Amino acid sequence: MHAVVIGGGGFVGSRLARELVKVGSLAQGEISKITLMDRAFPEELLHVEHFDFVVGDFSEESVIRPVLEQRPELVFHLAAVVSGEAEKNFDLGMKVNLHGSLQLLEICRQLAHQPRLIFASSCGVFGGDVTQVVADTTAPKPRSSYGTQKAIVELLINDYSRRGFVDGRTLRLPTITVRPGKPNAATSSFLSGIIREPLNGVSATYPVSEDSAFWLLSPKRVVQNFIHAANLSSDCLGDDRIITLPGITASVGDLLSSLRNVAGTEIAERAVYEPDAFLQGIVLTWPPNFDPKRALELGFVKDTSTEEIIRNYIEEETISGF
Amino acid sequence: MHAVVIGGGGFVGSRLARELVKVGSLAQGEISKITLMDRAFPEELLHVEHFDFVVGDFSEESVIRPVLEQRPELVFHLAAVVSGEAEKNFDLGMKVNLHGSLQLLEICRQLAHQPRLIFASSCGVFGGDVTQVVADTTAPKPRSSYGTQKAIVELLINDYSRRGFVDGRTLRLPTITVRPGKPNAATSSFLSGIIREPLNGVSATYPVSEDSAFWLLSPKRVVQNFIHAANLSSDCLGDDRIITLPGITASVGDLLSSLRNVAGTEIAERAVYEPDAFLQGIVLTWPPNFDPKRALELGFVKDTSTEEIIRNYIEEETISGF
Repeated sequence: MHAVVIGGGGFVGSRLARELVKVGSLAQGEISKITLMDRAFPEELLHVEHFDFVVGDFSEESVIRPVLEQRPELVFHLAAVVSGEAEKNFDLGMKVNLHGSLQLLEICRQLAHQPRLIFASSCGVFGGDVTQVVADTTAPKPRSSYGTQKAIVELLINDYSRRGFVDGRTLRLPTITVRPGKPNAATSSFLSGIIREPLNGVSATYPVSEDSAFWLLSPKRVVQNFIHAANLSSDCLGDDRIITLPGITASVGDLLSSLRNVAGTEIAERAVYEPDAFLQGIVLTWPPNFDPKRALELGFVKDTSTEEIIRNYIEEETISGF
Repeated sequence: MHAVVIGGGGFVGSRLARELVKVGSLAQGEISKITLMDRAFPEELLHVEHFDFVVGDFSEESVIRPVLEQRPELVFHLAAVVSGEAEKNFDLGMKVNLHGSLQLLEICRQLAHQPRLIFASSCGVFGGDVTQVVADTTAPKPRSSYGTQKAIVELLINDYSRRGFVDGRTLRLPTITVRPGKPNAATSSFLSGIIREPLNGVSATYPVSEDSAFWLLSPKRVVQNFIHAANLSSDCLGDDRIITLPGITASVGDLLSSLRNVAGTEIAERAVYEPDAFLQGIVLTWPPNFDPKRALELGFVKDTSTEEIIRNYIEEETISGF
């Protein structure tokens, strides 16, 4: 079975790729080939055996078509222009997040091999009323171009699946924290930064007040959930292929107090409040409370506490050397 | 003030165009010019003064761009490949309903004149669980490609409005009945046919059982609602430009019993049940019960009964000579 990870050079994508090697087989069969596609790959990933690398922008037909023409049975689609970038560069977000994804679906339709397609959407499709508890039946009301583009691709994947062009599954990702490495242009980047930088002895800022709450999931659990989505039979899913992933609701204050419990006050105090109107204008429109009933019934998983998230991060960083 | 009606040759579009002539001015000012765009126009409309006609497919850039370059202050967008056709011809539906609408938005963005744009969406964006009562916060779960394409354009119009590229308003239309003229490829066409044909002395069929219920609005009220949408200030609307129009819930049996009350048993008996699996597969996924709270608060209107709808139809047909 041939699996492709689009966005396989990214943090979640490369972690998922390593997990595919580890599990070896999925519901569709033994994994005989793994192709990773991205604009660039971290150096250490290039030394891992088992992977074919395709360097390029997936939204270019010349990059994506040859890979899909190999008729992979399983495609993970995690490539995106992140939220902050898509807000600042509208054309780029539309080209990659909307037209790139639509082109991917169209090529699958032409090839008619009906791959299982797992799409990384985002809880950023929700916006506006932050007091609501988001249920599986709640309408996406994005307040960002990124959220809009993700919500559109969700609808396309449902229709392309209903028509039998692909066997799609859309996972709406909570904010993933703690991400290792450097800050990126995701508007939620600070939710990793305020844990990661203090642990690395560096100061960090957060652009919203301490009581601002978010819907969070760890890298470990999101990878587990991607694997689970690939294993689920389409009979479980019916016509609605959209799954709002479970998570935990935590405020910036909760994260800092967990960091204090795990690593001490001195480290936790390295994160300081520095208001940012642009970031507030996006992240404070994300509702932090969800009722992910369907996902839990289907067996998707979440973390048990923010302390667990931080402890796992510390442990994994030592082990993996990221 | 220059108003454009895309789809102005269609039934609702041409009726709206005549109403624009009648009202003469709107919140944006006196209407000095009305351009109607469509692939074809009914003969009688071509004899009406006041209108500029543009014959062509709005999804062709060569057709739409020159009209938008006149920088109309108000654009009604009612053109679409209807539900049955979009389900049978996927490429055509995508080209017109999705790409045509996206192109329209992109040209407005390039021209930067921020027209007020009223888009005709459809309650066909909802599907699946027909027992639900659809609220303003309910997620669209379309079970047709038409509904998917409409739901996507709704999201685009919200984002293009939020960013100030257009001043958009999306109206989700209930099934419009009674439509005069001939049956069309809309999957809901029978909901007009079972009233219209018997009144014209012709037999008609309905593809679903008598207890199948639908969310209905008359041509008269939908035109009133388009005018109202054009007059509303954007302050009333905020970032969410989507309005699920009010309507009434009625079954096929309700419609036939109202027809009996208005026109007699002999006429009502000209409509007979003839099951059709293709039509059932779409129209029976449309939830018939709505709670259109926001629309009612914003002053949008509905009919009072199916008998009123039928009486209005009889009266209007005599007057207008359609």
